[in-house]
Amino acid sequence: MIQTIAWTGSAVRLLDQTKLPTRTEYVEVTTEQQMHDAIRRLVVRGAPAIGVAAAFGAYLAIRNVHSDKRALLNHLSQVCDYLATARPTAVNLAWALRRVQRVALATMEDAGEGEAPAEPASLSADERDGSAAASPSRAVERLKQRILDECLAMLEEDTRVCRAIGEHGLALLRSSRRSASGQPINLLTHCNAGSLATVQYGTALAPIYLGAEQGERFHVFVDETRPLLQGSRITAYELQHSNIPCTVLCDNMAAAVMSREKLDAVIVGADRIAANGDVANKIGTLGVAILARHFGVPFYVAAPTSTIDRSIASGKEIPIEQRDAREVSQGLGATTAPDGVAILNPAFDVTPAELVGAIITEHGVARPPYQRSLAEMCGRG
Amino acid sequence: MIQTIAWTGSAVRLLDQTKLPTRTEYVEVTTEQQMHDAIRRLVVRGAPAIGVAAAFGAYLAIRNVHSDKRALLNHLSQVCDYLATARPTAVNLAWALRRVQRVALATMEDAGEGEAPAEPASLSADERDGSAAASPSRAVERLKQRILDECLAMLEEDTRVCRAIGEHGLALLRSSRRSASGQPINLLTHCNAGSLATVQYGTALAPIYLGAEQGERFHVFVDETRPLLQGSRITAYELQHSNIPCTVLCDNMAAAVMSREKLDAVIVGADRIAANGDVANKIGTLGVAILARHFGVPFYVAAPTSTIDRSIASGKEIPIEQRDAREVSQGLGATTAPDGVAILNPAFDVTPAELVGAIITEHGVARPPYQRSLAEMCGRG
Repeated sequence: MIQTIAWTGSAVRLLDQTKLPTRTEYVEVTTEQQMHDAIRRLVVRGAPAIGVAAAFGAYLAIRNVHSDKRALLNHLSQVCDYLATARPTAVNLAWALRRVQRVALATMEDAGEGEAPAEPASLSADERDGSAAASPSRAVERLKQRILDECLAMLEEDTRVCRAIGEHGLALLRSSRRSASGQPINLLTHCNAGSLATVQYGTALAPIYLGAEQGERFHVFVDETRPLLQGSRITAYELQHSNIPCTVLCDNMAAAVMSREKLDAVIVGADRIAANGDVANKIGTLGVAILARHFGVPFYVAAPTSTIDRSIASGKEIPIEQRDAREVSQGLGATTAPDGVAILNPAFDVTPAELVGAIITEHGVARPPYQRSLAEMCGRG
Repeated sequence: MIQTIAWTGSAVRLLDQTKLPTRTEYVEVTTEQQMHDAIRRLVVRGAPAIGVAAAFGAYLAIRNVHSDKRALLNHLSQVCDYLATARPTAVNLAWALRRVQRVALATMEDAGEGEAPAEPASLSADERDGSAAASPSRAVERLKQRILDECLAMLEEDTRVCRAIGEHGLALLRSSRRSASGQPINLLTHCNAGSLATVQYGTALAPIYLGAEQGERFHVFVDETRPLLQGSRITAYELQHSNIPCTVLCDNMAAAVMSREKLDAVIVGADRIAANGDVANKIGTLGVAILARHFGVPFYVAAPTSTIDRSIASGKEIPIEQRDAREVSQGLGATTAPDGVAILNPAFDVTPAELVGAIITEHGVARPPYQRSLAEMCGRG
C-alpha cells in the first residue's frame, strides 16, 4: 500500500497527489507554511489525512521555537488557527488541531504551570529579559516531544480506525449484497475515500481492501469527480495498484450505469457529518445519493467518528469551501470555458440524512435515526 | 448569430467546434470523406446540424460523378450508407440522408426512368460502351442540382423549424415559470442544443434567444458536459456571444444547484426520440432528469419532429454510440486516469418518457402520453 503521510524524523513526507496518476512523487514538508500550502493545494487531501497532516504542521511550527512553555502554547494556538484556515469543510482538520492543543495543555497542567496561555509571545519571560536564544528548558522539550508523539499516535491510529471501518463496512456490504455469493460485489464510489485520503486503507475503500484480503471479489465503478478528478486520478490509481477491478466513468454517466448494472451499493467518504446525519462530502455526492435512491441502490457513507461534528444540528451549518473557478475552466491544461463567463466551484455538497442508508464508523454501523445512533458511536470512542 | 453550416457555392463551410471556445475557426469540406470525418470528430455536432451536414456530404460525393442517372443514384445510395455510419444515435442523420435519396428518386421518376437503381455503377451504360468520361447528360446535371437544392432547403428549413420550436418553447417556459414576472427565467441545460447544434437558433436554447429578442430575461446554468465539454465550451460560448447571463458548472454540481436555486425548468435537446417518448440525448441527461424529478423542477426536451423515430417503440432500441476512452482519459491535454484502467464512454443515455414533462417540437408541445401526442406532432408536418 502507498503511504500518503510519513514522518522521516525531521520532515513530513507527503505523496504529492496533484501529480497522480502519471507521476508518483513525494515532497518533504518542514514548515507550517508549507503544510498549509500542501493542504490548500490538495497535495495531501481527504478528511482524515488532512487532519493528521495539519497536526504535524503544528508540530513543525513549534519544534524550533525557543521560548518558555506558556509562550510556546500561545504560539501553538496561533499556528493551529492559521492551519485551520487551509480548508474549511473537513472537520477532521479542526479536530486534529484541537487534539494537539489539548495534549499540549494537559502536559503543561501536569507540570503545574496553569491553564491557557495568558500572555502573547512578544511578552514571554525569555524575551522580556532578552534571552530569547537561551537554551530551552527540559520542560519545553518534553512538551514538544509530547506533541510529536501525539502526531505519531494519530498516524498509527488512523490506520487502525480505517481498518475497523473496513471490517464493519465489509460485514454491511456482505449483508446487503444483491449479487450472488461468488459474484463480485458491485459498487460505485465518488471522489477518493481510499488509502490516499487517509494514512492507509481509506474509509469508503477500506471494506474493499479488507474483503480482497479475505478473497472477496469486487468491481468498483469510479466517478472521475470533476473538477480535480480525484476519482480517475487517485481512486483508480490505488485500486489498480491493489488489483481491484474498476471502471472509470464521467460523473454524468453514473445514472446510465445504475440503470443498466445491478449495483450492490454506493459507498463514499465524508468531510463532515452533522448531528442529524446530514453528510458534507465531495461535490457530486448529493447527486449520486439521489440517483441511488431513484434506482433503489443502498447509499452508504464511511467515516471515522472524528468526522462527526455534533456541535452542529444539521448540514445547513456546514461551511462549504468555494474554490478557484480556474480549477474548472483551466484545470486540465486546456481552456474549457470562454473568458469571463461565471463559473461555480463549490468543493462539497450536503446530502440530507434521509438519503443515507448507513454511516459506517470505526465503532460500528450507524442507522437512522442518526441523532441517536451517531451519539452512540461517538460515545463508544 | 454564428452560422455553423454554410454553402459557399463550391464547399461546405463548417465552424470547427472542436476548437471552441478559444478559437473561432472554419473549415471547408469538399468531399464526403471529409464530411464523414467532420461528423465523427464533432467538428460539426448536434442532431439537426449533422443531418444537414450529412445531406451536403452526399451532394459533395455525387457532384463530380459523370455517369448515367441510374449509376448516380446507385452511387448516392452507397454514399448515404457510408455517411450514416459516421454517428449511430442521432436519427436526424439517417432522416436527412433518406430525404436526399427520396428527392433523387422522385426526380428520376419524373423523368420516367424507373425506380431503384438495378445495376451496379461498374455496369453502367456509359461504362459499357467505354464512354465513362463522356460529358454527362442534362438530366444528370438536373438531378445533381435537385439534390443541392434540397440541401439548401434543409439549411433554410432548419432555421425556420428552430424558430418555431423557440416560439412554442417560450410560451411553455412562460406558462410554467415559478419566478416572479420581471425576474429572470432560471433554467438549467446540459450539453449544447443551441444555435451551434443546428444551423441557427438551436432547439433547447431557441426559446431563450426568441425570448431575449422580446425583452424576456433569463439566467442559464450550463452543465459543462464531460467528456467533451460541449456545455462549457460551446453553450457558454454562444450564450455569452448573445449576452444571455449564464453560469457554468461541472455536471456533478447540478444537484447542489437544484437544491439551492429556484429553477423554472431544465431544458435539453434530443438525438432520437422513440414512439413512446423515451429520449436519447447526450450522456448525463438521464441523471439531470432524475435530479429534476427529485427537486420538482419541470424537465423539457426540445427537438424537431425529424428527431422522432416512430419506427422504434421505446428507447431500448436506440443504438448508443460508444466513443474512444481517450476522450475521457486524455481529452484535455493531460492524462487523467492511470494507463490500462477500464473506462466507459457512452455518448448518450436514454431518459424514460415518464421523466419527461413535455417535448417541444416545431408543430407544438407534446405532453404525455407521448405515443399519441408525438404521432399527432409528426402528422402535422
